[in-house]
Amino acid sequence: MGKQAKVAESSWDNLLRIFTVPEASGATLNRLDRDISANLAGFLQEHIVAEEHDLVRIERDFHDTRIPEAPVFVSDQTRFLLDKVVAQSVHTASPSFVGHMTSALPYFMIPLSKIMIALNQNLVKTETSKAFTPLERQVLGMLHRLIYAQSDAFYERWLHHSDERLGAFCSGGTVANITALWAARNRAFGPDGEFPGIGRSGVFAALRHHDCDGAAVLVSERGHYSLSKAADVLGIGRDQMVAVETDARNRIRPDALVATLKRLERQRIRPFALVGIAGTTETGNIDPLDCLADIAAEQGIHFHVDAAWGGPTLFSERYRPRLAGIERADSVTIDAHKQLYVPMGAGMVLFREPSALASIEHHAQYIIRQGSKDLGSTTLEGSRPGMAMLVQSALKIIGRQGYAMLIDNGIELARRFADRIAALEDFELITEPELNILTYRWAPAGVQARLHDADEAQRRWINDLLNRMTQSIQKRQRERGKSFVSRTRLTPASHDRQAITVFRVVLANPLTTDQVLRELIEEQRQIAAEHLESADFANLKALLDTHRRRM
Amino acid sequence: MGKQAKVAESSWDNLLRIFTVPEASGATLNRLDRDISANLAGFLQEHIVAEEHDLVRIERDFHDTRIPEAPVFVSDQTRFLLDKVVAQSVHTASPSFVGHMTSALPYFMIPLSKIMIALNQNLVKTETSKAFTPLERQVLGMLHRLIYAQSDAFYERWLHHSDERLGAFCSGGTVANITALWAARNRAFGPDGEFPGIGRSGVFAALRHHDCDGAAVLVSERGHYSLSKAADVLGIGRDQMVAVETDARNRIRPDALVATLKRLERQRIRPFALVGIAGTTETGNIDPLDCLADIAAEQGIHFHVDAAWGGPTLFSERYRPRLAGIERADSVTIDAHKQLYVPMGAGMVLFREPSALASIEHHAQYIIRQGSKDLGSTTLEGSRPGMAMLVQSALKIIGRQGYAMLIDNGIELARRFADRIAALEDFELITEPELNILTYRWAPAGVQARLHDADEAQRRWINDLLNRMTQSIQKRQRERGKSFVSRTRLTPASHDRQAITVFRVVLANPLTTDQVLRELIEEQRQIAAEHLESADFANLKALLDTHRRRM
Repeated sequence: MGKQAKVAESSWDNLLRIFTVPEASGATLNRLDRDISANLAGFLQEHIVAEEHDLVRIERDFHDTRIPEAPVFVSDQTRFLLDKVVAQSVHTASPSFVGHMTSALPYFMIPLSKIMIALNQNLVKTETSKAFTPLERQVLGMLHRLIYAQSDAFYERWLHHSDERLGAFCSGGTVANITALWAARNRAFGPDGEFPGIGRSGVFAALRHHDCDGAAVLVSERGHYSLSKAADVLGIGRDQMVAVETDARNRIRPDALVATLKRLERQRIRPFALVGIAGTTETGNIDPLDCLADIAAEQGIHFHVDAAWGGPTLFSERYRPRLAGIERADSVTIDAHKQLYVPMGAGMVLFREPSALASIEHHAQYIIRQGSKDLGSTTLEGSRPGMAMLVQSALKIIGRQGYAMLIDNGIELARRFADRIAALEDFELITEPELNILTYRWAPAGVQARLHDADEAQRRWINDLLNRMTQSIQKRQRERGKSFVSRTRLTPASHDRQAITVFRVVLANPLTTDQVLRELIEEQRQIAAEHLESADFANLKALLDTHRRRM
Repeated sequence: MGKQAKVAESSWDNLLRIFTVPEASGATLNRLDRDISANLAGFLQEHIVAEEHDLVRIERDFHDTRIPEAPVFVSDQTRFLLDKVVAQSVHTASPSFVGHMTSALPYFMIPLSKIMIALNQNLVKTETSKAFTPLERQVLGMLHRLIYAQSDAFYERWLHHSDERLGAFCSGGTVANITALWAARNRAFGPDGEFPGIGRSGVFAALRHHDCDGAAVLVSERGHYSLSKAADVLGIGRDQMVAVETDARNRIRPDALVATLKRLERQRIRPFALVGIAGTTETGNIDPLDCLADIAAEQGIHFHVDAAWGGPTLFSERYRPRLAGIERADSVTIDAHKQLYVPMGAGMVLFREPSALASIEHHAQYIIRQGSKDLGSTTLEGSRPGMAMLVQSALKIIGRQGYAMLIDNGIELARRFADRIAALEDFELITEPELNILTYRWAPAGVQARLHDADEAQRRWINDLLNRMTQSIQKRQRERGKSFVSRTRLTPASHDRQAITVFRVVLANPLTTDQVLRELIEEQRQIAAEHLESADFANLKALLDTHRRRM
């Protein structure tokens, strides 16, 4: 078939055709469509170019801001996408890409997503979503039950209730966290006598009414950056997202928390929420949730758990106890596009009490009318796609046992990898994995020994050298395109709170094996050796040579 | 192929298989996959059941909150989705469904979405999106240029700038509007001497610092409900999203706006943004944007235009002048999942000044580091999918001329439909279409005559009867499943501001023809006749009979 079968010049008939007639079979796009269905992994492997181009070079392909006057052929655009977009994408599904929080997707996600997109429902109201509204409520109920394990009667009563919801579905963890804190804020400063509530009157009137100088949320210093963004958005201010110190294992220190609460009281700042983390983004640690629940209850404040990452650990009989106390949270964030293996764009926040979302309810005449079952009345977002269909499918097709195996596998793989790193001469484990995330760095035994004996200033100097090396290895490894770890900067107690740049490994891809990790380490070792030869790392090399001479 | 080819019992090998091996060809899901590619419209037509089930009946299929212990076969879940979800979905692509703001999708969106989902990129940072980051910036640049038409040098300089952005991509218009007002709020109450700015200090400290009692945003009473939600979220309070009166054509009244500004000043409430609407959700009207730009400039406040619906009118040489003044806006919201014909979940906010988003910038060590080109530093959401790829493709494949034709067609179809309604004896046009949205109701000439002569109380009584009828027709028509209009409640000047329930028609589907609309009216006429026979509408029937006897 020639180009006559595609959209060509701008005639109304040609235009109508793209809304009705698919491209002739055999054309580029159709072939890709079939290739992806037949072999997703193969498609990615074939079309994503391993060696990374420089971003500035890539940008050249995306510099034109003029929308073309005349239409471009579908086949030409497909070619462009393959050569310039797909080729230069990140292979998030690769077993050796262990620095992201996205992983390989189950194959059925692709055709199911296609059905979802073909239907193009809008979850803001039942009129544009029909079966998708009860489906989304069911998914919220399933996750609610996973966390809170209420009775059949409870779900019977509330699941499809027109006035109440068990949670809110959204595009991701950030919106989920904002929604939780929004509801908490509006509840804490709700209607009171003449005062119509913070939702109507705003933060200024609310704090005046309550006679205080600020409203605060408490979270560990390892809290996700979206929380301070939430504090900004919600008008309480980033400074009032109060970071509490963590212990050697990156978990909030209850004593520091209590001290902070006292300080806030003296400052006439009213805390309205406490956030516990179940799986910190950088190190995968879990706050002592039961203890936090006690403190929140004592203080009478909202207890939110950010389990965007760690939530699905609840599937595992073996590791579920690590999240003990989560069932006492007033609200919990879980991301489906992380460890539920659903494509990007699916988050949820669950509320223990079905009435908790009432504080942020809103209505309009033409949409989400009072008394309707429209989900849009309690979501931050308006129009939303039917991602819940993918979550339901994953929960059913993978099942509890399947998720338990995935979770157990990741945690145990991380444990073995950590043990291996600890046993290596030239690498240093920085944070032990509590779940499936760990951090480490390249640091030969000699340098580690020097660090041990050095004074603070010398340690800072050595750590700076190592930090530059870690950063450089991470960058080079990414550019090579064979494997990928991410990096972050920690201030671990084990290093006197000095800033340490680390490799961060996230082990959620079931296709990642011990062998893949061994190769990853081997590649880092090679890159380190190469870099040591460059003038940039002369100081580090000299340090190593001194040590070798001493041996 | 039997079930052995699908995911069966929970073994690790079976689990791994769903991450690698697609279902055997010939299986249900694979067949659907092919069917959708071959004939999207046919797939929807075949699988969506026309006659609507009662929501309570649908809910029965989604009552179980237990996540199955053992996995469900992919084929069984596919069957379930077809029978219970797809069958009971809304046929948003149907040419006779003219009540939604979603329409038919161009066929190429389906395979392109598949590529996007297969790649599963995360736009929060370049490390997880690579080519998608410059691609998204290009799309923002394209829309920026459509609105602001800056020079080549301008885009050359700012498009891929590491510190600045021309806008923010997001899941939809609500988040776009919140982002615009968030940036406006943070700019208006920015750092000032010792005061670190509202982003860090919150609304309370900011208003104290500025010595005022509130912060407000002004918008016409026809503003989208998401704006008052934004005011709630942002901590200024819904009451401070001040609704200004509109004229007979649903456009903000500048005199009322000026009066409102004076009142706010007396109340020591500081306005920081004025919102103009380019395409109100209910009636598709456009505020006098040029005039609003003048007032905003005079007041020194942020001028935001909510063009979620009407933005793409800018493609039309013929109708673009209706949006005159939009190029003076500080920020503009446009939804790609509306009139850019992209699947659900794509919105944008563009900012005239590349530095405008700096007021909401945020960073973290492990992500969106300072100086990086990561788009996550200025978006409300965190992890986000690569929807920009679909927008870019639509802009290129449909092209300016194509969009112009689509826009012109909708506006002209609406004009003809309005003329037709106005000429009918038994229908009444309530709002004239300025773009492609209009409202009307069933109201036989006799009733219209009675309304004309009646006093206020009688009119209210008659309008109540008609309102019930409109609501009832709309509901019945929806249930029949052949065609769909939405409904809303207006208080038109032409009816002395009495509440009038109307049918609302949105004409953006290029497959909708005059003939489809004639049939839609005919069906409404039939339903009205049926309903008049029921006891529920005895009063209305009596009223009509009286009139007939008089004739």
